[in-house]
Amino acid sequence: MSRALPARVRITEVGPRDGLQNEPQRVPTATKAAFVRALVAAGLTEIEITSFVRPDRVPQLADAEELCAALGPPPAGVRYVALVPNERGLERALATGVIGKVAVFTAASETFAQRNVNASIDESIARFRPVVEGARAAGLALRGYVSAAMGCPYEGHVDAAHVVAVVEALDALGCEDISIGDTIGAGTPGDVARVLDAVLAVVPAERIALHFHDTRGMAVANVLEGLRRGIASYDASAGGLGGCPYAPGAAGNLATEDLVYLLDGLGVAHGVGLDPLRQASASIENAVGHALVGRVYRAPAWPLGE
Amino acid sequence: MSRALPARVRITEVGPRDGLQNEPQRVPTATKAAFVRALVAAGLTEIEITSFVRPDRVPQLADAEELCAALGPPPAGVRYVALVPNERGLERALATGVIGKVAVFTAASETFAQRNVNASIDESIARFRPVVEGARAAGLALRGYVSAAMGCPYEGHVDAAHVVAVVEALDALGCEDISIGDTIGAGTPGDVARVLDAVLAVVPAERIALHFHDTRGMAVANVLEGLRRGIASYDASAGGLGGCPYAPGAAGNLATEDLVYLLDGLGVAHGVGLDPLRQASASIENAVGHALVGRVYRAPAWPLGE
Repeated sequence: MSRALPARVRITEVGPRDGLQNEPQRVPTATKAAFVRALVAAGLTEIEITSFVRPDRVPQLADAEELCAALGPPPAGVRYVALVPNERGLERALATGVIGKVAVFTAASETFAQRNVNASIDESIARFRPVVEGARAAGLALRGYVSAAMGCPYEGHVDAAHVVAVVEALDALGCEDISIGDTIGAGTPGDVARVLDAVLAVVPAERIALHFHDTRGMAVANVLEGLRRGIASYDASAGGLGGCPYAPGAAGNLATEDLVYLLDGLGVAHGVGLDPLRQASASIENAVGHALVGRVYRAPAWPLGE
Repeated sequence: MSRALPARVRITEVGPRDGLQNEPQRVPTATKAAFVRALVAAGLTEIEITSFVRPDRVPQLADAEELCAALGPPPAGVRYVALVPNERGLERALATGVIGKVAVFTAASETFAQRNVNASIDESIARFRPVVEGARAAGLALRGYVSAAMGCPYEGHVDAAHVVAVVEALDALGCEDISIGDTIGAGTPGDVARVLDAVLAVVPAERIALHFHDTRGMAVANVLEGLRRGIASYDASAGGLGGCPYAPGAAGNLATEDLVYLLDGLGVAHGVGLDPLRQASASIENAVGHALVGRVYRAPAWPLGE
């Protein structure tokens, strides 16, 4: 490559949370736990395993406590991440004793925030304050999600200035890891450039993660653009979990295998083994009731003899 | 974008040939003709419509003469391209009176050439000579395909030096348009960089087209890398024709809609309308008997209100 890319990137595996949350079928807790263990075996060190939201809101993740109990503490060097919407969620996460990082969730679009967290962007950030303080007091790391950053299903175009405002607020709150999400998979590398030009003027690249959905087949190219701009942290979902091959337009996350294949091809280190990663995806495929959509997951092994 | 991309690219639509050739179901000639007309209506100006190979070898394209007769001469500014394996094929193509460009086909891998054109690479190129002379005498433009350029299903890794040797031979023969193909969809932007570094040292970017298959989801990112290196000509297949959602690993071409969506997002001109292009793809979807796999084709329209 003509331009220096990061030598190494961190992959945050979001399949057990963002992936399964978007699967219609509920997966048994034991299957989830085996899946998380297989992800660890594949080399993933940052795994978002569940969400401590109201069980009736996201029935797929209603077994958050049971999953944590089944897993126990992560092995050395591995961190389990959980989405936490409020103080009650933080209490639940802390009570498990296995969560090393909590993630809060807001959006770059007012309408998206209203419909997803039932608050304005400012209200959602105000609501994070006690969560952040409690998490920090407990020694947990903090991640913030900025969703709908490259397009909103209700508002359409989203100005980079809105993304910057939310990123700054999350930065001020103390989130050391701010994940900018193209939640509806509308963005192209042009949008990645546009948003990062604005964001990197106020927050260093080391604090930024990118979270792409592959709805329009742009996710891998968007990662390439992110790499060129020095971003070294990407979210992905094993097997493309959360996308459905039979539902046109179903918005799956970037598949972890596709991300790994790209990084291998670019010579960028990441620590994940493609073959055991495929096995992890295979371990959950039956439970979700449909073929996983990840391209590399479904393609024949390459190089030959691998 | 931080680096200048080509202001405009040419898209060669290969759905009617490379796409349909890889579809199990035969499509009626009238449906093909309507499809080609719809592609023209969408703004495509370079369309590979068929192949003058032995009808028993590629039954899906056995109606080459009938399709040309049904289409008649292309509108002004549009060129119909046909694949021509030998002098007999050239005679047939010339007899139709509607073909403006002929394409010859070889590979960067000896085993791939043997299995696909039943000749060594050198033999295949020697065989082109009378085709090229006949085509030039008739005033036709010339395209050369170098397949398996980023990986061979039989040999594995393919050295860039092999690609360069074939590109040079096609250049010496007089092909003004040399399409380098990642036939099995194994390449990443790292391979694009590696191959183009070698090729552009001997042939100018203006002569080179890139032809990607999306088997492992890398095609759009590979185009992005090609654009950054000044390549302004890309092959694609409407709707991702030729790929099958139900056959794991089926190697579809890069979908034209995905290419157009990327280029629109980057502000690179191409002359194709996404909405009429989608309609062209829809016109052939029933005839191939399965849902087309193109991501943008299947996704909801974006931006909103489009």
